[in-house]
Amino acid sequence: MTFPVTTRLSGRRIVLLIEEGFSAREVTESARVLAAEGAEVVIVAPTVKAPYRDKSGTHEIAAAMTAGAVRMKDFDAVVIPGGHAPDRMRMRHAMVDLVTDAMAAGKPVAAICHGPQVLITANVLRGRTVTCWPSIAVDVKNAGGLYVDRPAVRDGALITARKSDDLPAFLEALVEAITGSPTP
Amino acid sequence: MTFPVTTRLSGRRIVLLIEEGFSAREVTESARVLAAEGAEVVIVAPTVKAPYRDKSGTHEIAAAMTAGAVRMKDFDAVVIPGGHAPDRMRMRHAMVDLVTDAMAAGKPVAAICHGPQVLITANVLRGRTVTCWPSIAVDVKNAGGLYVDRPAVRDGALITARKSDDLPAFLEALVEAITGSPTP
Repeated sequence: MTFPVTTRLSGRRIVLLIEEGFSAREVTESARVLAAEGAEVVIVAPTVKAPYRDKSGTHEIAAAMTAGAVRMKDFDAVVIPGGHAPDRMRMRHAMVDLVTDAMAAGKPVAAICHGPQVLITANVLRGRTVTCWPSIAVDVKNAGGLYVDRPAVRDGALITARKSDDLPAFLEALVEAITGSPTP
Repeated sequence: MTFPVTTRLSGRRIVLLIEEGFSAREVTESARVLAAEGAEVVIVAPTVKAPYRDKSGTHEIAAAMTAGAVRMKDFDAVVIPGGHAPDRMRMRHAMVDLVTDAMAAGKPVAAICHGPQVLITANVLRGRTVTCWPSIAVDVKNAGGLYVDRPAVRDGALITARKSDDLPAFLEALVEAITGSPTP
């Protein structure tokens, strides 16, 4: 019988957004690590009727809840993985509203790779220090974000990272933000 | 024996940019229509060593020239098709420089779907009236572009369109820009 070493997120509920073309590694590793810390990770998409495929077309994941049905008062944080999915997520009003609500409530929002595209559409980057996949750095800067090229960046409750290889630092920063550790 | 009805682009040379994940329809229809008008269409990519695949993974196209080898003085216009390719093109300095050079020389630049992402990185949108795929409209606006939701938009030598269905209007606007017709 094995126990996790730590369960810092016991009792916490986390929204993990997906859309067509998501990064399989960013979705599965986020879900695995956060669940291992004791969190309930809820996969959220525009619809629960059909599964979504990752950008390689080899992974399928179905959502447990629609974005429109989520109320942020019932959740502690939002994760926005990358891939081609954020380009679609940012056109989904319910997903953008969900991110806006989380930011307004001061709840942690964590976006990796192309995930910050959703933050641009939600218009929540002005004056915030963030990182992202390099192709969209100019978009992040034009949206008022203070772009830095670092593996993972935490600015209060806002956590960003550049790419899948940054997942360990990204998820650790998210855990610390949820548990109320001060920004390092 | 058949002749094209018009060959308005006889003697003209046009750069057609590609990168991994291009929209097959936007590349092939642009090449076909412009060639039918008499133009020499040159496929340009970061390398000529291997073919590039479209976003569905079913089409492969090899480039005739690298972006670094193109001199805009030898060409009359640049076409930037959409798909996932522009997200990669905007990280290729030689491609961005090529677009900057064309704009500086007042030569027509035509971008469709996600193609305007390259125009954002080239920083050539301030005060220009443009359209694009809706997911990046906010990025276009943040870059100083005057976004409108119309099938195809011509602002002087700058031509933009929203999606593959807009190709006929997009390509006609490009032909008119190359042949020196005034903006309608």
